[in-house]
Amino acid sequence: MHSQILFDHGRAARIGLPEAVFCEGKSFEAICELLERFGPKGERSILFTRLASDIFARVPEKISAGYDYDAVSRTAYASGLAPKKTATVAIVSAGTADAFVSHEAARTLSYLGIPFELFEDCGVAGLWRLTEKLEAINACGCVIVVAGLDAALASVLGGLTPKPIFAVPTSVGYGMACEGHAALASMLVSCAPGIGVLNIDNGYGAACAAARVVLQLAEQRAVAL
Amino acid sequence: MHSQILFDHGRAARIGLPEAVFCEGKSFEAICELLERFGPKGERSILFTRLASDIFARVPEKISAGYDYDAVSRTAYASGLAPKKTATVAIVSAGTADAFVSHEAARTLSYLGIPFELFEDCGVAGLWRLTEKLEAINACGCVIVVAGLDAALASVLGGLTPKPIFAVPTSVGYGMACEGHAALASMLVSCAPGIGVLNIDNGYGAACAAARVVLQLAEQRAVAL
Amino acid sequence: MHSQILFDHGRAARIGLPEAVFCEGKSFEAICELLERFGPKGERSILFTRLASDIFARVPEKISAGYDYDAVSRTAYASGLAPKKTATVAIVSAGTADAFVSHEAARTLSYLGIPFELFEDCGVAGLWRLTEKLEAINACGCVIVVAGLDAALASVLGGLTPKPIFAVPTSVGYGMACEGHAALASMLVSCAPGIGVLNIDNGYGAACAAARVVLQLAEQRAVAL
Amino acid sequence: MHSQILFDHGRAARIGLPEAVFCEGKSFEAICELLERFGPKGERSILFTRLASDIFARVPEKISAGYDYDAVSRTAYASGLAPKKTATVAIVSAGTADAFVSHEAARTLSYLGIPFELFEDCGVAGLWRLTEKLEAINACGCVIVVAGLDAALASVLGGLTPKPIFAVPTSVGYGMACEGHAALASMLVSCAPGIGVLNIDNGYGAACAAARVVLQLAEQRAVAL
Amino acid sequence: MHSQILFDHGRAARIGLPEAVFCEGKSFEAICELLERFGPKGERSILFTRLASDIFARVPEKISAGYDYDAVSRTAYASGLAPKKTATVAIVSAGTADAFVSHEAARTLSYLGIPFELFEDCGVAGLWRLTEKLEAINACGCVIVVAGLDAALASVLGGLTPKPIFAVPTSVGYGMACEGHAALASMLVSCAPGIGVLNIDNGYGAACAAARVVLQLAEQRAVAL
Amino acid sequence: MHSQILFDHGRAARIGLPEAVFCEGKSFEAICELLERFGPKGERSILFTRLASDIFARVPEKISAGYDYDAVSRTAYASGLAPKKTATVAIVSAGTADAFVSHEAARTLSYLGIPFELFEDCGVAGLWRLTEKLEAINACGCVIVVAGLDAALASVLGGLTPKPIFAVPTSVGYGMACEGHAALASMLVSCAPGIGVLNIDNGYGAACAAARVVLQLAEQRAVAL
Amino acid sequence: MHSQILFDHGRAARIGLPEAVFCEGKSFEAICELLERFGPKGERSILFTRLASDIFARVPEKISAGYDYDAVSRTAYASGLAPKKTATVAIVSAGTADAFVSHEAARTLSYLGIPFELFEDCGVAGLWRLTEKLEAINACGCVIVVAGLDAALASVLGGLTPKPIFAVPTSVGYGMACEGHAALASMLVSCAPGIGVLNIDNGYGAACAAARVVLQLAEQRAVAL
Amino acid sequence: MHSQILFDHGRAARIGLPEAVFCEGKSFEAICELLERFGPKGERSILFTRLASDIFARVPEKISAGYDYDAVSRTAYASGLAPKKTATVAIVSAGTADAFVSHEAARTLSYLGIPFELFEDCGVAGLWRLTEKLEAINACGCVIVVAGLDAALASVLGGLTPKPIFAVPTSVGYGMACEGHAALASMLVSCAPGIGVLNIDNGYGAACAAARVVLQLAEQRAVAL
Repeated sequence: MHSQILFDHGRAARIGLPEAVFCEGKSFEAICELLERFGPKGERSILFTRLASDIFARVPEKISAGYDYDAVSRTAYASGLAPKKTATVAIVSAGTADAFVSHEAARTLSYLGIPFELFEDCGVAGLWRLTEKLEAINACGCVIVVAGLDAALASVLGGLTPKPIFAVPTSVGYGMACEGHAALASMLVSCAPGIGVLNIDNGYGAACAAARVVLQLAEQRAVAL
Repeated sequence: MHSQILFDHGRAARIGLPEAVFCEGKSFEAICELLERFGPKGERSILFTRLASDIFARVPEKISAGYDYDAVSRTAYASGLAPKKTATVAIVSAGTADAFVSHEAARTLSYLGIPFELFEDCGVAGLWRLTEKLEAINACGCVIVVAGLDAALASVLGGLTPKPIFAVPTSVGYGMACEGHAALASMLVSCAPGIGVLNIDNGYGAACAAARVVLQLAEQRAVAL
Repeated sequence: MHSQILFDHGRAARIGLPEAVFCEGKSFEAICELLERFGPKGERSILFTRLASDIFARVPEKISAGYDYDAVSRTAYASGLAPKKTATVAIVSAGTADAFVSHEAARTLSYLGIPFELFEDCGVAGLWRLTEKLEAINACGCVIVVAGLDAALASVLGGLTPKPIFAVPTSVGYGMACEGHAALASMLVSCAPGIGVLNIDNGYGAACAAARVVLQLAEQRAVAL
Repeated sequence: MHSQILFDHGRAARIGLPEAVFCEGKSFEAICELLERFGPKGERSILFTRLASDIFARVPEKISAGYDYDAVSRTAYASGLAPKKTATVAIVSAGTADAFVSHEAARTLSYLGIPFELFEDCGVAGLWRLTEKLEAINACGCVIVVAGLDAALASVLGGLTPKPIFAVPTSVGYGMACEGHAALASMLVSCAPGIGVLNIDNGYGAACAAARVVLQLAEQRAVAL
Repeated sequence: MHSQILFDHGRAARIGLPEAVFCEGKSFEAICELLERFGPKGERSILFTRLASDIFARVPEKISAGYDYDAVSRTAYASGLAPKKTATVAIVSAGTADAFVSHEAARTLSYLGIPFELFEDCGVAGLWRLTEKLEAINACGCVIVVAGLDAALASVLGGLTPKPIFAVPTSVGYGMACEGHAALASMLVSCAPGIGVLNIDNGYGAACAAARVVLQLAEQRAVAL
Repeated sequence: MHSQILFDHGRAARIGLPEAVFCEGKSFEAICELLERFGPKGERSILFTRLASDIFARVPEKISAGYDYDAVSRTAYASGLAPKKTATVAIVSAGTADAFVSHEAARTLSYLGIPFELFEDCGVAGLWRLTEKLEAINACGCVIVVAGLDAALASVLGGLTPKPIFAVPTSVGYGMACEGHAALASMLVSCAPGIGVLNIDNGYGAACAAARVVLQLAEQRAVAL
Repeated sequence: MHSQILFDHGRAARIGLPEAVFCEGKSFEAICELLERFGPKGERSILFTRLASDIFARVPEKISAGYDYDAVSRTAYASGLAPKKTATVAIVSAGTADAFVSHEAARTLSYLGIPFELFEDCGVAGLWRLTEKLEAINACGCVIVVAGLDAALASVLGGLTPKPIFAVPTSVGYGMACEGHAALASMLVSCAPGIGVLNIDNGYGAACAAARVVLQLAEQRAVAL
Repeated sequence: MHSQILFDHGRAARIGLPEAVFCEGKSFEAICELLERFGPKGERSILFTRLASDIFARVPEKISAGYDYDAVSRTAYASGLAPKKTATVAIVSAGTADAFVSHEAARTLSYLGIPFELFEDCGVAGLWRLTEKLEAINACGCVIVVAGLDAALASVLGGLTPKPIFAVPTSVGYGMACEGHAALASMLVSCAPGIGVLNIDNGYGAACAAARVVLQLAEQRAVAL
């Protein structure tokens, strides 16, 4: 009962974002087949997410050779899309423990050809770390905030920036952190207004949401000129 | 131990959105005091949300007279902010049962001076109701989708529009609808990428999120020109 | 305190469906004993579900040789029941990640001798994939829909088919997907009426539910003729 | 921002079941307007569910007069659909406390013109009450089982009937009954195979699911003859 | 089966805090009986908590006359304990919506004879409101922080004060605020170390915890001198 | 900071049941030390529960040699307590998948010197398996019922026996079985009255509860004679 | 669709406990009908539970006159069963707030004709209140412990008595008390072995469980003599 | 995208407690880098928590040699802070299974230079173990109580000591222990007043909370002298 996956190739035309491959839960054989299919000699390059380093290490050299792989974000792609002239996306994270998510967002933007800047270790238990970067953050066109535990960073930053802002809770922590559900709830009930929240650990989704915004900004500007 | 509430008047300057008054849980006396304070003869007008019609009906005529009140959205304000020249926000809802949320979003945008268009009864159990409005929706600059129950509308629309999109789950339904938690979960794990999700029933927050986007679009255009 | 399992051999006579063996959680020794007991030389053939490929690989050759094993669905049986002349069951799934469930349903129908057709990759983020198969689906006598994440496919398909329809949520996804609980809730509160829902990942149960329907259809027809 | 609800009038043609009006949460004005619109002098008659007796009692006589209203099931309709020649649906409930759900199923079938038989007080704490009715139940074409608390009736009956079977958990009980969630879970993990489960208290949905089956049976028979 | 409540009169001697009466859920008759028993002419005065204003209003004048009642905190007592010479307790709250809890803490300290200072409207969406009061807060001997929603105030203040700090989540908010459970989780997983958390809305408990600290401080000082 | 565990040796005298050792989560070193301490040459023999077979296999021969170990129930003890002349305890289980719990109960009774009888595979999907054993069950002095999934066996048996009855939910199943929480809820809200429920998988506790009953029965008889 | 409830009259013969009427959720008309049916001039007297005092007050005098009603326990019956010569049941509760449950247990035992003794206000925050009653408790044949909040009383008492012991959590408390779920969990994971737990607030069930024990004790004694 | 972690070095000055390194979830490379950076030849010594023994064993000898490592508490540091002249902290635990948490608290206090005393195996199922240590516990300046399962120890001790008291639930147990959530809930709703609760297994946090108290006591005394 085997058959090739039916990709939604019209997606990029419809919504400006091409389909991606979520690797977790797929068999090793399926992953190799897809890496080959969308590799340098295959169909149009595609983004692979949640591709663990120990799995990528087992992929045959002749397939993996054509790929740009990043272990922290667990992402891979053969070649990125053409760079876009959009506003920069600020990615602000609470701690280095959140890097697997903030870097997933960063790599997704890299693949999409959208400029970004990373601001890490801005957790509010030491407020000065955030405030000294605020001006640079507010110079960007859209903000992604990544935090686990109490996710207080989202509320504090949401009260300091007028930019479109997307928040990603992370599964960092234990006990009542509840694998990121505490952070998710905090972000959804934030006392700062107008924050769009993504699923736990979904750095990819946050990048897509930010992309929708800066691509729209770019289109708007193109129309205006 | 009574004292006047300490408002965050600098908020509009910092983030482009003035503070609002959430009425639920406040005493009748406190609500009257605040309505008077921010009424036609008071401080700068402010938006009141979650102000139930049976409570507003009891407010003394001399205070309530100066207010524009809407019973479906449960919102009131003395005078809206100056109209902005921004892109239009599309508000798409699954059913009329969701009106208390979709209209809260609409009224918040009215107060902020931002243009919007309402598309109601677009639930996916009858797909034709959504598809026949798709072109008009995609002509807007930002989309708010409001749905309860399975919230499938968010996923379907998210796969059909390239615009920045914010989703608000509603507490409509019973049993496993779990007061909107089922819809919230559906939206957060949507198979369509890049959707920013708001708290259950938070039409106000969705309007603020959309406002951040279209205000940024307007600013971008202003800079470009 | 060891004793042979007491099977409910009268089940097929009472409800038309024979008892099956759920392997997860059983010891390797117990599984081997049961495979031998219901193998080619043993009692009437029986269906084994949730039999992981790494476990089946360890079963002695002389026992496993008599079995038809499928790794994706994790099912095995020595010989299927006699083919029935019933209507075809349509199995519609959202993505290939759901294959371990949709194929479990398919294999259960194979074992029961009931015809079926598989429609994979019909997720609603690309609606065209579902609509182009709708006519073929509606030509069947009963529909099984398999989806994880937001499970929006169940609602959309439920609004497009008049056939008896059973929905199986899958544990695909992370964070708020909550191991399939989000999909389960979505299906139970679907805005499309009359969908019977099965437990998370229970492809076997969906096949049994569909079998009850098409066997009843066949009996009805037999009586009519 | 008032507008008439956009009904999905094509639904009956597409899926064999017309749209219904869920009254809970709708304003009194909206309910009256809809009762008038779909009354004896209005558009094609429609089913109203979850219409509480104290609300219906306040509807103006000139509107309510044209309606057949039932207080236990909280349903109303002006005139039922044409009777169908289908198999009978058995509705089996555990106790009279479940009547608000079992009768909602019964009334929905009445409205749809489908024959049914009610078997109440069959809770398994006194098994004889179920076994003495088993033959009559198995003479029907499809079974709906309604139970709260531990919902053990679904499992016991599921092991005694070969018919298509749909189970509706009810919100009867307190404490760990968790408003029907315990019964829902019991039904979903039932040790009897092939039971399709509906949302808590959703007698309407169970009737729709059963209708899909017996209408398909009838069509099958029509084709066969 | 009526009998007088058996009070734990030795509690003050054992742990420094007398037993109190939690009124919620008690019958009106029981409350009146207890108010009389511990009134001006009765046994040693005791604190009544969760005594709603509409209930207290119905208490016969001859009983209620001897009481100091506060409607916001819903507390009453005939006469407070002797004032103690302890350090001051700072009570810091996020918003006026939290007053029913912060004032319960304040009133409990009043009754216990312990000095306190209230700092309200310090929510972090407008950080300046907290920072301008920080010096005054840090001049106290112990800090109680009261906040609902995302409870980010606890984390920010926890990173700015070296004082013993107790946090009380409040049930303010809707949707994912989950009646205070989101705030509770946030406080328990706070990125600031060493915060002791109380039950949702438990201003009384927070005052008791702070009292344990400042009474110990006072005793320590007494020993030192 | 190492120190010998302080056992509650007075427990047997106070409540008739000696303290036991729960091995899960203890280090291998600690387990070996305890096995030696309570072995043939050590202090009074004690029951070890949740002692996995792969761990017991690693215990040095000189220590393990003195022990009676059972792999299914994961229990060990050097020598049981003196046999008691009490009524027999019936242990009734739904399926062999529940054996790790039903056998834990059986082994605990063995250790305590209390007679028992095991009735396995009595799941209600095939009612005849239970009814044919009912007379033998009702001849015992106390009943333990062990079941997972929907735990319907507890309700059915509770309605058929007048004996003291204790129910143990098991963590068997997947999806909405929720690691035994569905079975636990079912047992707690059983429609059969007077069933005492134990924690999930707690066969040990059920044996202790039954022991309290039959020991009391024995004492009562001794007094009567 | 009205019909008389089908009672399980054989229950007393089968399990020694007659069926009872749970009034919550039943209509006023149904309650009156049942009170009349089982009143002094009707069928054998039966126990009514969860019958609120404001509802009983509205029952016509000619029906209610024949009943013994208790407002705290919310129970009623026309005449109790014949007194049994059994051991006494001890009912131990943590506080007077738990009286609605402990008295429900007491009244159920009264109705069943089984002797009991009530020990109230034994909460462990003042341990002396429990220890001074321990001897009297241990003189009984079976123990029911009723407690809300942390339910620590169950663990402490479970470690001090050898008697069969049943624990009932109560819904007393707020916030993390979670309507009795915290107390329920505490009782199920109690560090004292062999405690059978009932559903939240189920005083009736605890009495039935205790009745099973003392009736068995009595029967045992009868056999012995 | 690699960069050195930005530490909050001002934290000790601001709140009296230096930042620590939580190792769980960090890569092996990151842990080695940090151990080197804060080792004997590096920056000011820092506390490492949740550093599993199998990971520490793999750290190169030249780095690990400079560290004081404890396997039970999973903590390490190169050199502790200067000893403080504060009151002693009592750490009271229910059982040895809780040692990984109680010892984490102890080691954190060791590192901070604060005196403490450990009281283990004080579970309330054998009350004498607690009461015989009560005088020694009450001689300390602050109490930490560590318990899993029903956490009844917190309530009993909270009713016996007047000292500031912090409670840490542990993840010990199975089934309804819910990985420590049952213990957490019990502690938060304790019937003993004024207990500050920490996150599940957070021995580090409890030590920090206690440190805030005894450091404040010491400062108070210093001022007084």
